[in-house]
Amino acid sequence: MQAEAVYHAAGGSWAYAYNHETVHLRLRVKRNDAEQVFVHVGDKYDWGAGQQEFAMEKIAADTLFDYWFCPVIPPKRRMSYAFRLQQGEEQCWYSEVGFTDTPPSDAGMYFEYPYLHESEVFQVPDWTKKAVFYQIMPDRFSLPSDYDESQEEGKFLHWGDEPQLDGAFGGNLKGIREKLDYLEELGINALYLTPIFSSPSCHKYDISDYKQIDPNLGDKKELKALVDECHKRGIKVVLDAVFNHCSEAMEQFVDVLNRGEKSPYKDWFHIHSYPIRGEDGQPNYDTFGNFGHMPKLNTAHPEVQEYLLTVTRYWMEESGIDGWRLDVANEIDHEFWRHFRRLVKSINPEAYIVGECWTDANPWLQGDQFDSAMNYPLGKRILDYFEGESLDGASFAETVARLSVRYPEQAHEVLFNLLGSHDTGRVATRIEDKRKLKHAFLFMLTYPGTPCIFYGDEYGMTGGDDPDCRKCMEWHPDMRDEELLDFFKTLIHLRCSIPALSTGRYRMLQAESGNPAIIYERITDGSHALIWINHSEEPAEVSLALETNDWKDAWTGEDVPVADGQMTIQLDSFSFRVIHRSWQPEGS
Amino acid sequence: MQAEAVYHAAGGSWAYAYNHETVHLRLRVKRNDAEQVFVHVGDKYDWGAGQQEFAMEKIAADTLFDYWFCPVIPPKRRMSYAFRLQQGEEQCWYSEVGFTDTPPSDAGMYFEYPYLHESEVFQVPDWTKKAVFYQIMPDRFSLPSDYDESQEEGKFLHWGDEPQLDGAFGGNLKGIREKLDYLEELGINALYLTPIFSSPSCHKYDISDYKQIDPNLGDKKELKALVDECHKRGIKVVLDAVFNHCSEAMEQFVDVLNRGEKSPYKDWFHIHSYPIRGEDGQPNYDTFGNFGHMPKLNTAHPEVQEYLLTVTRYWMEESGIDGWRLDVANEIDHEFWRHFRRLVKSINPEAYIVGECWTDANPWLQGDQFDSAMNYPLGKRILDYFEGESLDGASFAETVARLSVRYPEQAHEVLFNLLGSHDTGRVATRIEDKRKLKHAFLFMLTYPGTPCIFYGDEYGMTGGDDPDCRKCMEWHPDMRDEELLDFFKTLIHLRCSIPALSTGRYRMLQAESGNPAIIYERITDGSHALIWINHSEEPAEVSLALETNDWKDAWTGEDVPVADGQMTIQLDSFSFRVIHRSWQPEGS
Repeated sequence: MQAEAVYHAAGGSWAYAYNHETVHLRLRVKRNDAEQVFVHVGDKYDWGAGQQEFAMEKIAADTLFDYWFCPVIPPKRRMSYAFRLQQGEEQCWYSEVGFTDTPPSDAGMYFEYPYLHESEVFQVPDWTKKAVFYQIMPDRFSLPSDYDESQEEGKFLHWGDEPQLDGAFGGNLKGIREKLDYLEELGINALYLTPIFSSPSCHKYDISDYKQIDPNLGDKKELKALVDECHKRGIKVVLDAVFNHCSEAMEQFVDVLNRGEKSPYKDWFHIHSYPIRGEDGQPNYDTFGNFGHMPKLNTAHPEVQEYLLTVTRYWMEESGIDGWRLDVANEIDHEFWRHFRRLVKSINPEAYIVGECWTDANPWLQGDQFDSAMNYPLGKRILDYFEGESLDGASFAETVARLSVRYPEQAHEVLFNLLGSHDTGRVATRIEDKRKLKHAFLFMLTYPGTPCIFYGDEYGMTGGDDPDCRKCMEWHPDMRDEELLDFFKTLIHLRCSIPALSTGRYRMLQAESGNPAIIYERITDGSHALIWINHSEEPAEVSLALETNDWKDAWTGEDVPVADGQMTIQLDSFSFRVIHRSWQPEGS
Repeated sequence: MQAEAVYHAAGGSWAYAYNHETVHLRLRVKRNDAEQVFVHVGDKYDWGAGQQEFAMEKIAADTLFDYWFCPVIPPKRRMSYAFRLQQGEEQCWYSEVGFTDTPPSDAGMYFEYPYLHESEVFQVPDWTKKAVFYQIMPDRFSLPSDYDESQEEGKFLHWGDEPQLDGAFGGNLKGIREKLDYLEELGINALYLTPIFSSPSCHKYDISDYKQIDPNLGDKKELKALVDECHKRGIKVVLDAVFNHCSEAMEQFVDVLNRGEKSPYKDWFHIHSYPIRGEDGQPNYDTFGNFGHMPKLNTAHPEVQEYLLTVTRYWMEESGIDGWRLDVANEIDHEFWRHFRRLVKSINPEAYIVGECWTDANPWLQGDQFDSAMNYPLGKRILDYFEGESLDGASFAETVARLSVRYPEQAHEVLFNLLGSHDTGRVATRIEDKRKLKHAFLFMLTYPGTPCIFYGDEYGMTGGDDPDCRKCMEWHPDMRDEELLDFFKTLIHLRCSIPALSTGRYRMLQAESGNPAIIYERITDGSHALIWINHSEEPAEVSLALETNDWKDAWTGEDVPVADGQMTIQLDSFSFRVIHRSWQPEGS
């Protein structure tokens, strides 16, 4: 066995409490290097009483590694443990002290899970496991019915014109509320709105007053009306918290601009020298990116903390929103987010906290900060794969597997999966072939996590990078791809109505090099779904061994027969099938 | 190159802020698998401006891996980075997305250090880098001068009798204060006292009243007198905080015993059912180990937090102590320790916080909880090696190297190194050969970190496991090994007077399989020390290439010549030399 490949740490996403009594253990081993892996568990305070051994399960494999997993319920919430790896006649032990041929000689040489604290169990809101999100930029979604273009002349651009880096179009909260029928029909059950607080820009990621709704978008009454109406329809609402930085027009920053070191707000920011030079590119204070008009807030300062937490509380209590998406979340200090989580969960234990992190979000996904992170890495892999016509299903399966064990399982269950956002080009521009585009969304919407659709993607809105991806929503059916829209409606409906598709365990069943067809399953008690995708111009005949003969096509409702223990399906060019069965869950 | 062996994570002890502007990056590679490693660094918000490349340094090697290191000062406190590994003609890139033959194509595929927050920089007290600790069990160190055995008959055992699991001997705080001349002469400059608060046991690790000094040991006036006298002599004092559990005699637990579920203190503990059954072994509440008389405190409960933090503040303010050693520290929740650190550092920013962790302490050593942990793993490796006559200096060097890169560098600089404590057998019992024992302590006291000597070890006190390791201190010179005591005095003096020995960078210079002689160095600006150890019955002649000819023997003060660029030393059986040179540091 290759010792160098084996990895485990007694913490992080390798050893964590899944609930009040269960610890999840994971071990990484070189691919196909161990036939069996066991975890050997005991209580270091009662070592003489003996240890128990549990078989681990191989839950994922990527190009280099297999990932082995075992849930353990330690009787006294604590345990010392080591792994035993077996390959043929060969076996070795892996523990706190590294590799040994024989079991470690005393408890102190084992890995240690010192104590399972209920207060530290990473708990995520249950509803997010079944949620399908829809991301809206309020300025670009819908003009309100009482919009009077003649009156608003000069203030707003003409709806549908090409968007620029700045310039608003007049969409607002009321406009969204008036389109809830559309969203309900689409089937989504959660909204994520980009920022709505006062801001000089059209995107509002530079907030000048966190206590006001931007007048272009509405007021707090309108927000409340929107949230209430959403809640009536079973739709949750998540707002965008832009706490990393503000607008140069925020009064506290203006005060520092005016009064320099004498300003009581000088420590609200990271200022290197006075007087302040506010040009973009080379400001003498920390900013978001290199934008001088977006000064970074010093979130370690108690007054800034209090200000932002007061704002957080205010909008949650005022409007009853269901959570926050956190902008530039990984550039804010951990302690701020810990305070934030405690506050948010104290107001609404079911509130969802999802951070913007483009790379590894582990430091924020240990239970004390976010529930979830925007899963750009998965989105990128999905687009990379379905954009092309690669025959290599295996390598796709591997990159997905690698990401599937990156975080504690409870985070993975509600990871915010997306193929695009206001910060990326549009899917339909990147993948022009609609059949391929459908496969990408099919995968995302039949994969574990909390999927999110960017407004307009459901009818094929095109667009390159910002500002082109932020076009006005098209409401005229003739200007939309209604067939694609129907595809989304069905897909979202299936995700929400077939339990396996939202909360079932994912497993890739067939993904081979040289074979364009992949099959994967989702399974939970009472529900089992199989997703077959032929991502190739060549039609394919694909078979799978199955034990029962009660499968239905999710799209058509037709029976799909199993003959001689095999289901065999003819898949046309770039086509897919979702097949499922259901049964009475145990104990129901 | 073996891809499976390469490891890095964008956080933890792999990527961390060393100070307000410097990020430390570490990379693990299969041993001897890369000749050169570089880190490629840029600002994701200004990627077009180009990236910089820095050569990494190989700072440690264990059996399986090399550890590469590079400090980086990112101009805007943020960076995206990837590693380039080179071996001959072969090169590969390692980034957020794994291995690639060419540089990752965009910034999003790089590892990310999102922002260096000053508030998150892990800062440890400077004095601990130069401290030599001495651990005392107050009951066992010294009877006070006014002790009257006839009067105390029955209350205390006779000084010097064999210790039992319980039974006190009458040593106390006054007794310690009266022996400060001895400690000053020994040369130590910090004391760690095992618990001194009210407790029914002799060891006092089961506290019944955190607000009182145990009457057997003194009172708060005596504590203050001891701390003041220590401070006058430049000796710091650290107390033992036993916050994981208390005594069954603590009034809050007694109340729950008496009133069951009606007690207002029922949530101070982890009680599974009522009525409470307090037997050892199978109590129906969580305990320390399986000791029914030591109920575990629920440190996630706000009232318990407040109680323990109030106690912490009280003793720090009352007595001016310099820090806390935390008992069973890894079984208490992280959030408690975060509160604790904030409080302790707000009262005394230079206070030292050292946790009892017998295994990997990474979760507590990230800057938000402890400064340091008891380094039992290193102590065990030192004893394992010097106990025997292994010729394998290489494997010893490797296990030391592995531990040297386990934590962020600032934690390693003040890691609490020890060869024994009240919880282990005595070194002199495990290593009977005094020459070997000296080598073990020599290594510990010339290695980076904060060494601690358990009372009595300096004259060769023997003893097996608890209670035998907790004997009364012997004060009669005839009953002590005075030669060993002199060895300790010299060794401690050298550690404190040769800057390299306390704060210098450690590097193993010679440690080969089949060669019993090892040489390692400590070096800092202005001071350079070489430690030569022949751990074998066979005399050895050992040579080292050196550039200057200004070396002195630290023990004798004699010149040690370098001829033709070589220093050659004859080492007798089981002997050692400490050789050093000093010069005017730059800028002084």
